[in-house]
Amino acid sequence: MKLISVKELLETQPTSQEVEINGWVKTFRSNRFIALNDGSTINNIQCVIDFENFDEELIKGISTGAAIRVKGALVESQGKGQNLEIQVSSLFIHGKADADSYPIQPKKHSLEFLREKAHLRVRTNTFSAVMRVRSALSYAVHTYFQQNGFYYFHAPIVTGSDAEGAGEMFRVTTLDAKNPPLNDDGAVNYKEDFFGKETNLTVSGQLEAEAYAMGLGKVYTFGPTFRAENSNTSRHLAEFWMIEPEMAFYDLDMNMDLAEDFIKWVINYVLENCQDDLQFLEKRLLDEEKSKPQAERSEMPLIEKLRFVVDNNFKRVSYTEAIEILRNSKPNKKKKFDYIINQWGADLQSEHERFLVEKHFKCPVILFDYPAKIKAFYMRLNEDEKTVRAMDVLFPGIGEIVGGSQREERLEVLQQKMADLGIEEEELWWYLDLRKFGTAEHSGFGLGFERLVQFSTGMGNIRDVIPFPRTPQNASF
Amino acid sequence: MKLISVKELLETQPTSQEVEINGWVKTFRSNRFIALNDGSTINNIQCVIDFENFDEELIKGISTGAAIRVKGALVESQGKGQNLEIQVSSLFIHGKADADSYPIQPKKHSLEFLREKAHLRVRTNTFSAVMRVRSALSYAVHTYFQQNGFYYFHAPIVTGSDAEGAGEMFRVTTLDAKNPPLNDDGAVNYKEDFFGKETNLTVSGQLEAEAYAMGLGKVYTFGPTFRAENSNTSRHLAEFWMIEPEMAFYDLDMNMDLAEDFIKWVINYVLENCQDDLQFLEKRLLDEEKSKPQAERSEMPLIEKLRFVVDNNFKRVSYTEAIEILRNSKPNKKKKFDYIINQWGADLQSEHERFLVEKHFKCPVILFDYPAKIKAFYMRLNEDEKTVRAMDVLFPGIGEIVGGSQREERLEVLQQKMADLGIEEEELWWYLDLRKFGTAEHSGFGLGFERLVQFSTGMGNIRDVIPFPRTPQNASF
Repeated sequence: MKLISVKELLETQPTSQEVEINGWVKTFRSNRFIALNDGSTINNIQCVIDFENFDEELIKGISTGAAIRVKGALVESQGKGQNLEIQVSSLFIHGKADADSYPIQPKKHSLEFLREKAHLRVRTNTFSAVMRVRSALSYAVHTYFQQNGFYYFHAPIVTGSDAEGAGEMFRVTTLDAKNPPLNDDGAVNYKEDFFGKETNLTVSGQLEAEAYAMGLGKVYTFGPTFRAENSNTSRHLAEFWMIEPEMAFYDLDMNMDLAEDFIKWVINYVLENCQDDLQFLEKRLLDEEKSKPQAERSEMPLIEKLRFVVDNNFKRVSYTEAIEILRNSKPNKKKKFDYIINQWGADLQSEHERFLVEKHFKCPVILFDYPAKIKAFYMRLNEDEKTVRAMDVLFPGIGEIVGGSQREERLEVLQQKMADLGIEEEELWWYLDLRKFGTAEHSGFGLGFERLVQFSTGMGNIRDVIPFPRTPQNASF
Repeated sequence: MKLISVKELLETQPTSQEVEINGWVKTFRSNRFIALNDGSTINNIQCVIDFENFDEELIKGISTGAAIRVKGALVESQGKGQNLEIQVSSLFIHGKADADSYPIQPKKHSLEFLREKAHLRVRTNTFSAVMRVRSALSYAVHTYFQQNGFYYFHAPIVTGSDAEGAGEMFRVTTLDAKNPPLNDDGAVNYKEDFFGKETNLTVSGQLEAEAYAMGLGKVYTFGPTFRAENSNTSRHLAEFWMIEPEMAFYDLDMNMDLAEDFIKWVINYVLENCQDDLQFLEKRLLDEEKSKPQAERSEMPLIEKLRFVVDNNFKRVSYTEAIEILRNSKPNKKKKFDYIINQWGADLQSEHERFLVEKHFKCPVILFDYPAKIKAFYMRLNEDEKTVRAMDVLFPGIGEIVGGSQREERLEVLQQKMADLGIEEEELWWYLDLRKFGTAEHSGFGLGFERLVQFSTGMGNIRDVIPFPRTPQNASF
């Protein structure tokens, strides 16, 4: 017999035919009304039992969190709040949930409390909604790229090279932790390590994706990346998922077009496919914000905010223009910024990005043509020899959601840049090969997937949009 | 201007209108015919140049591997072997590829040679075809599950617990490699490590997926997993991608139904969407096998083999039946097996699995109800108390492609099993919680993605179906 989910059941018409359904008890009222949910949807199916016809011991086992199977007629609901209900004729308890010890009771739990119960928190409305949206967003990412001629590319996770010099890395090893083998000079002998060299967890699949773009044309990665940074913030994880498209024959303008089109498409996908969950999350956010001062509340409800992103052009602004705007801004003149913008070349802080997006333009912003000095070595140098063809997409409430660039395809220019920065050519011999053999202009970007989930669900802390967050001092479960 | 890919161009009608296309030169014949490819398809577009109208220096730059842009009229081809061609009016060289140093010349390269050039091998027909099929298979996996009510679940990569006790693990650390901090007793002080404890790369996301199945109903993982095993074989990688669906309220029969339906669906997806690549790979395989003795050749050409899997039922056989078949088999009686099957309880080796699949049943086989002693602690004990509700799907040429089970949902039985095996309850407190609160029967399986790619492409070595393979002593690129 094929299992029917609550979601499927709620989409059918009441026929008074007998149905069978499994799920977990969300609530049990008046010894009569069971709200049953199996995780397939935010909505419950109401199961009505006539307690006089059931064994008392059985009834006692029906409590929040218990797994049950019910059979009964699917009928139009007598009560308010739902269209359908099951008139239960038989009930089986798969597993009870003792009310005194089961932590997920039908009351408000803090997100902090639930983080400690990450193995159970997906049984709450909030987390099940977030995780369903996360799943839909993932599929939207794949669907967008596959429909647009991209090939999915699995970048290696264990790597012998530091892609960007971008972040602190985790070492991957099988050497004895206490007494590693040593060379004559006293250094650790990584030749005896599993891979015969020192290896780390990847911080980005970009360089390898470039190699694949130069063969398959358009590729994208979607995989885990890692930063061993001691950042205990609501925006950082040590392990997070990143999406990195890379396209041969794309310049920066085409790259920006793609980033904007991509983000709009995946958010629209969620709007079209996750209405119930988004409505729940929107209400949750409105409730949560009631206790906040007006100034800290969102300007738009969640769904309106998502719709706004889909419907409006992102504002494209050069770094140079942005510096002028910031220099002349009120918070800069009144010294309200922690970092005052005095001159061209300054690295933008989160406060500046938020000012541009939330106060000045009031829409997503793409900044481009950054100073070469504050960007990575592989970005293409402009004719001015001061700026590079970099671009960041900035989102309200989130800050940088995308960072990308046109890549430096000219061998000599790349070699010079690496020499200036002290990057050994032997380290990246294969990356240089891409410029020696059939080089061409190409571009790409990286999008931190959890930030996209945060934006789409309205969740304030990045630890609440990934099943089992990894952060400093925390790798539980 | 929107870029047009070679794939898109080949699907259009010749209109004599001017088109512009970018790609890499595959071959250049008679100073006249360029076979151009951009990785979007196995097929090239022929570009015809009238060399008298082009600069001699430019012509010299057109060699295998060079990246070029051509403009010209798209017309019906005069020659054989293609329908369309471009009569080139202008040509631009993005980047040359010096014939003396570019390794990917238009001749047969050994797979071993190309493994050393993993950053360039995707520019060959074989690897571009394999990687496009890999991408299509990935998308098929997501599409199958999403269309069937599953939610994609990202299992953690860095983990503090050893899921199965199944394999050797890689340690993830930021401690000083040479002089790690020590406790008073001389042991390494992992409290000072990044996560405040000893952490490893995951060998399986199953246990965490179980937690999510008990909230969302049906989930699947698709992510990298790791084994620090010193296996230098054509079937093993240290880093590989695994797919692990996990379903609440599923018993073993439903689990087997799902595995079979899933595999057939994704292979059929490739049959429907990758015809050109499969035809190329089939031909490649036939060529390769010409040099082999008859007995080592495939019984069916690639596409016929895939079609056979899609069209035929997998044979379901209990372990006990399989042992009887093996015990009475010719190779067992004649002692041709390396491991002779004498009695019930023996662990099956690859040679036995291949005999069952390739010689005896001549179709994919699902073995189920294995002896408890040779299977993992979390598998559900049968009433006989000797066997567990495990199942393996065995494929011709590949061996085990899927391993799964119904999980032990009974708290006391699971605790007893863990005690017998010396697994500390504190290690898996959260996993036991799933049995304390709303437990229910549930099942799942794991499928090694690279083995599926091997089967679908006919590639003999697993290192040739992942972009940058990680194996003992090798983490290049």
